[in-house]
Amino acid sequence: MPADLNAFHTFLKPSEILSLSDVQLADQRRRFTAAPDMVLQPHSVESVQKIMRHCFEQKIPVTPQGGNTGLCGAAVAQGGVLLNLSRLNRIREVNLADNSITVEAGCILQHVQEAADRADRLFPLSLASEGSCQIGGNIACNAGGLNVLRYGSMRDLVLGLETVFPDGTLVSHLHPLHKNTTGYDLRHLFIGSEGTLGVITAATLKLFAKPQTTATAWVGVDSIDDAVSLLTDVQTHFAERLCSFELISRFALSLSSGFLQAQQPTDAEWHILLELTDSLPDSGLHDALAEFLFEHGRENCILAQSEQERQTLWALRENISAAQRDLGTSIKHDIAVPIGEVAGFVHHCAADLVQQFPDIKIVCFGHLGDGSLHYNTFLPNIVSNEVYAYEDAVNQTVYRQVLNHHGTIAAEHGIGMIKKHWLNAVRHPAELSLMRAVKAHLDPHNIMNPGKLLPDSE
Amino acid sequence: MPADLNAFHTFLKPSEILSLSDVQLADQRRRFTAAPDMVLQPHSVESVQKIMRHCFEQKIPVTPQGGNTGLCGAAVAQGGVLLNLSRLNRIREVNLADNSITVEAGCILQHVQEAADRADRLFPLSLASEGSCQIGGNIACNAGGLNVLRYGSMRDLVLGLETVFPDGTLVSHLHPLHKNTTGYDLRHLFIGSEGTLGVITAATLKLFAKPQTTATAWVGVDSIDDAVSLLTDVQTHFAERLCSFELISRFALSLSSGFLQAQQPTDAEWHILLELTDSLPDSGLHDALAEFLFEHGRENCILAQSEQERQTLWALRENISAAQRDLGTSIKHDIAVPIGEVAGFVHHCAADLVQQFPDIKIVCFGHLGDGSLHYNTFLPNIVSNEVYAYEDAVNQTVYRQVLNHHGTIAAEHGIGMIKKHWLNAVRHPAELSLMRAVKAHLDPHNIMNPGKLLPDSE
Repeated sequence: MPADLNAFHTFLKPSEILSLSDVQLADQRRRFTAAPDMVLQPHSVESVQKIMRHCFEQKIPVTPQGGNTGLCGAAVAQGGVLLNLSRLNRIREVNLADNSITVEAGCILQHVQEAADRADRLFPLSLASEGSCQIGGNIACNAGGLNVLRYGSMRDLVLGLETVFPDGTLVSHLHPLHKNTTGYDLRHLFIGSEGTLGVITAATLKLFAKPQTTATAWVGVDSIDDAVSLLTDVQTHFAERLCSFELISRFALSLSSGFLQAQQPTDAEWHILLELTDSLPDSGLHDALAEFLFEHGRENCILAQSEQERQTLWALRENISAAQRDLGTSIKHDIAVPIGEVAGFVHHCAADLVQQFPDIKIVCFGHLGDGSLHYNTFLPNIVSNEVYAYEDAVNQTVYRQVLNHHGTIAAEHGIGMIKKHWLNAVRHPAELSLMRAVKAHLDPHNIMNPGKLLPDSE
Repeated sequence: MPADLNAFHTFLKPSEILSLSDVQLADQRRRFTAAPDMVLQPHSVESVQKIMRHCFEQKIPVTPQGGNTGLCGAAVAQGGVLLNLSRLNRIREVNLADNSITVEAGCILQHVQEAADRADRLFPLSLASEGSCQIGGNIACNAGGLNVLRYGSMRDLVLGLETVFPDGTLVSHLHPLHKNTTGYDLRHLFIGSEGTLGVITAATLKLFAKPQTTATAWVGVDSIDDAVSLLTDVQTHFAERLCSFELISRFALSLSSGFLQAQQPTDAEWHILLELTDSLPDSGLHDALAEFLFEHGRENCILAQSEQERQTLWALRENISAAQRDLGTSIKHDIAVPIGEVAGFVHHCAADLVQQFPDIKIVCFGHLGDGSLHYNTFLPNIVSNEVYAYEDAVNQTVYRQVLNHHGTIAAEHGIGMIKKHWLNAVRHPAELSLMRAVKAHLDPHNIMNPGKLLPDSE
């Protein structure tokens, strides 16, 4: 379609049109390679509107892209326009009265955290790729991460959106309204829509009081049920102060402690890393946590006595992914089940997998406070991307147990290309039909990120 | 349509079919009278499905009704079936590991609060009609109330829904998943849809740690800007502990203190009633608040020294509505603007109203922490429902200023019948078109609560 593509030169600045060699075409996991006909990097929302109007008229596919850190292939352009939002990166407003910040889609998450920090506030979304992922992508995928237990997922942090619909219409709701019920809430349709309904160009996000004190403990527990019981006790007592409650298996800890050449804080089947924070500078949090653990008979534990000790404990959690690389390429699962079902899921799923693949290695860790697990499986003697030949077989087993335990196949990474054929298993046909109706109304020519999220029709 | 209506007797129990005299046909404000052809009160979700299947086939209008406490006429049946959900009132599960409760739509809000309390948890939604309003209605209208500042509106408290679509299809997502991103989030379409998309039959809701200590203060302030500055300071320091921050005008206080024959706690243009709570029993909250107010130079204030003093302060806030009845029938507004815009709105709106109606009396109070105001206006010498002849003129002026200050015409009461002609002013035509597409897909015969929420097409 050279004629259609040439038209962009008539209404965009030369610097808004990139060459293919200017962008990273491989995705984060080097599993997919994008093949766009054109890469556009608009400098303004007006340019996004012009691009969408033209693409709508000419039926040119458009794949919005942020920091290219997605793990499910949602931002991999297969022909058409790769719409890179990186240049829409202004912090538009910080509003202290309303505890809100208005930012453009291309802002890097860490820059938003820093802008909040400069205003003596917290923007709580925090995840491994925060140095390069972008807010638009975080919203489009409803990102999760480390602070969901206390502050919620991205969905819970969005007060308002500015969006460009597939036909170029701008719909803007960027004023911070804390109560508002005026018809169907379309903001929540766009959050988690992975670029299939339109382009998110800006958002008004919630800010919070900055934590002033932190108390961190590492607790060895006998079982996941024991860990859930500890979670319930901590939440009953400390309420919102609990911001992290991470579960680590004995095997996962052995990997990261070996990798770091560090001592294991406790000897146990399962380990919990929990953290409390408080906005008060003199909250007595550390002593209160020590007393709480003592009173609850939790002797197999360590409290961080300094920021350095805290970082040592967190390093054991954060280096599991790096430490497992020696095991080969993993088949990863981003799953969640109700917290009360985690123990049953872990037990049954391991039994099923071992029966099917006797030598399988399972690295299990995650955010127990959200019921969300990183459940990574390694097949010995199978290297590199060859492992993907076994992906469907492993997924079948894992997801069957996820569904038995009333869970979800996508907790915080989204659906993208790699899970869309599983959507039929978790959503009712009537819901999929409604999703398709919404999509068809907004995007009748199916130009917005085609081939992503929605299962292929039969 | 007698033939269609007779059919209900073939598949419902006799006790599921009421006579018109069994139900309250006037709405809460005695402004509208329902005129259904039939009143059904299903005992089970299966009965709801059977009713919807029949109504879908026969194109019989259905108006779902909960506690009949709505203020906008959303549950007033105009012909067809009035579907009263009161008998679907089981608490299905309390889940401590997941901090969740699963309840049927007809559960009275207070009964849900009490069930949470018995499990040593808090269900935080709290509003004036909690003794008779029902959870299904709270969800359908995205109810707000007193604890939104800390815990959010009903939308923020819903983990999952069970719904019956207009054609009778049951779609159930009642397992507590704290992270889940599997395509477009349809739960949020139903929340706030006011019965126009289907019937909500049950919900899984969030529970929280029960507060153990409370600190309450009444502070006189010079201006709303001064109040906003106090709000910002309190939130920065006490973070989530702040659960109420109520604004009361000098005139509103004079009414309620006169009505109660009680002393006014402070002498000031504006008054703030603020409350902190904490899950820790020995949190030192009272002393911390006293110290905070002293350090911030807030001398025109009173701290409640006992539960009785606390109740005396709250009575002054809660009796404003009762106290204003002597002024006649009011034209009420349920509005919200960004918190930073409240002062400007109040100033400009009063100026405009007084110019138009020189003798107008304005009773202004509300949840400043959410930017949400009860803005009640009284026209002297106009009694009873005669006042509604002036409603559009007053609304024009009030809503023009609401929109100038980037606010919403419906904060926590919904749209119903009385505000649907205003929806065009706050939603983009492309959004209304999408709403109509969603409605048409789910409800092609427009049987679900027709005439509510969506503006009449031109």
